[in-house]
Amino acid sequence: MNLLETFLADLIAAEGPLRIDRYMALCLGHPRHGYYITRDPLGDKGDFITAPEVSQVFGELVGVWAVGAWAAMGQPEAFNLVELGPGRGTLMADVLRTVRKAAPGFAAAASVHLVETSPVLRQKQRQALGEAVHWHDRLEDVPEGPMILLANEFFDAIPIRQFLRRDGVWRERVVGLGDGGLTLGVGGIVPGTMGKDGDILEFAPARDEIAREIGARLVAHRGVALIVDYGHLHTAPGDTLQAMRAHQFVPVTETPGEADLTSHVDFEKLAQAVAETGAVALRGMTQREFLIAMGIEQRFAQLSGKVDDATRATLQRQMARLADEAQMGNLFKLLCVTSPGMSTPYPFGDP
Amino acid sequence: MNLLETFLADLIAAEGPLRIDRYMALCLGHPRHGYYITRDPLGDKGDFITAPEVSQVFGELVGVWAVGAWAAMGQPEAFNLVELGPGRGTLMADVLRTVRKAAPGFAAAASVHLVETSPVLRQKQRQALGEAVHWHDRLEDVPEGPMILLANEFFDAIPIRQFLRRDGVWRERVVGLGDGGLTLGVGGIVPGTMGKDGDILEFAPARDEIAREIGARLVAHRGVALIVDYGHLHTAPGDTLQAMRAHQFVPVTETPGEADLTSHVDFEKLAQAVAETGAVALRGMTQREFLIAMGIEQRFAQLSGKVDDATRATLQRQMARLADEAQMGNLFKLLCVTSPGMSTPYPFGDP
Repeated sequence: MNLLETFLADLIAAEGPLRIDRYMALCLGHPRHGYYITRDPLGDKGDFITAPEVSQVFGELVGVWAVGAWAAMGQPEAFNLVELGPGRGTLMADVLRTVRKAAPGFAAAASVHLVETSPVLRQKQRQALGEAVHWHDRLEDVPEGPMILLANEFFDAIPIRQFLRRDGVWRERVVGLGDGGLTLGVGGIVPGTMGKDGDILEFAPARDEIAREIGARLVAHRGVALIVDYGHLHTAPGDTLQAMRAHQFVPVTETPGEADLTSHVDFEKLAQAVAETGAVALRGMTQREFLIAMGIEQRFAQLSGKVDDATRATLQRQMARLADEAQMGNLFKLLCVTSPGMSTPYPFGDP
Repeated sequence: MNLLETFLADLIAAEGPLRIDRYMALCLGHPRHGYYITRDPLGDKGDFITAPEVSQVFGELVGVWAVGAWAAMGQPEAFNLVELGPGRGTLMADVLRTVRKAAPGFAAAASVHLVETSPVLRQKQRQALGEAVHWHDRLEDVPEGPMILLANEFFDAIPIRQFLRRDGVWRERVVGLGDGGLTLGVGGIVPGTMGKDGDILEFAPARDEIAREIGARLVAHRGVALIVDYGHLHTAPGDTLQAMRAHQFVPVTETPGEADLTSHVDFEKLAQAVAETGAVALRGMTQREFLIAMGIEQRFAQLSGKVDDATRATLQRQMARLADEAQMGNLFKLLCVTSPGMSTPYPFGDP
């Protein structure tokens, strides 16, 4: 047993099984042994890789998109450029480099705010972005005002609850103690009649709460939010909880705190939560659709023109990874949210 | 920091401050570092001493009382003799020795059931009582049937919640993290208008629940329960949470798991809880009143007749400790509960 597993086993023995959301939160955020507290999980030597780490082109295209969003906001002279879960700061660095060239007015107006709880990643972000940015533990702590908000692979790590239907009744899924250590089980019966045996439903009240905070800010001040994550555009039953270690899936109760623990994002519910506040959830799209609309093919063609064959092959692999239907292109989705009464930022207008 | 303090500090850092009842339960029952899991707390070398450990006379007089209770039940030919929190088994051993001499029919009818969660104390009880007794984790697990139940210094260790009034509002008391480690603090505002600033109210839903379980069993089957503990016969505000280590009071957040953590028992609320079930809560009395009514003075006089001066002085000190107003005599109280429609066991009738 690793130290976190011992902690969790003691807690379960003393107080009973843990709901999935508590288990996720403790695995990711335990103050000494939590996954995000102890390591930088990104990159080839880490457990997973994100789009900005695949290629600088991802951040460049988001930067181009952000300039359009700024225009749709009426080009405010001062606004907060906020990122939730900025990883190593790569996306923000690529966005800033792009906008400094493409729209110096944007760059001068932007005040950068990063929402990050991991001390290891804050240090990486400091290396990537310098000291002219502001760090916060929670979005609530970011100053109010006009805002462009980015969240790439942020919501997938926010804890969820799971409910399992068996023998005609719904029960909450929990992590308990079995003969061999931590094990998935079910708790008491909860109300609910829909569905069929074997169904698993996921609810993410903590994600909804952050979505409502984003929505409330976009209602109070002009702004746009771009949420990118793997997940589904329409709510459907299914177990999407997953643990990933060294780029391989592992059982979710194995080596807690040493594997990334996430679940697919339900974009329909996220859109409902922001819409409840009066903010406008624009039509969802795939990462492939977004990147192609933003010119990924032209940008990679431009980069490939002046390099050797080996580098050109690498660039092609990177573009395929980001945009191919079988890779990140279709699995990843985008939700764009704006203040009410604003013009729609490209490419989220009618198809 | 000891290992339990580290566990608690991690838990608080991850999930926020702990209510007093959770803090008590974890300090006493943590599966590896809990107070009752790791030690026999009793005796001169332990942290506190209980009445049966002061003198065999306490258990002998409870045995005499139990024979009277059995008579009031109509001398059933089979019943459960249950003890909650039997410590080292001393009280039960003294009771059984007494009834075997005084009422062989009682001894033959009794099936002994001990409710004990501590593995260390279960071992001591096995040494004191042999294998002809049954152990259970909870009263709910004891077989149903006619019952005489004893609980000496059991309820004081069942967790409580505390509420503190300050600036005109009530807040729940919690254990949080301060600069120097664990510290007492307050949580969010709770409803409540009575009282004055500085008041502390204690509630013990877990105690009430056990009291209702006792009451329900006495309503379903004929029986009597005798609850002995330190506390107060009438509800009153006040902070009675205490930690005791090596016979000295220590701060309740100091060396968790290494000090006994208890609070005074509110006998008025306990009586209300059993009365809710339809069982009969007889008048409360002090331990002094009970022991004198059961003949403590005559029994000590008898024992003192045939011993040397030193032993006689020891016996006098023991009797004083059990019954003197300034020692256990007035601090400890008794609640006797019976099935409805039963005759009242001595000495709980009208004074």
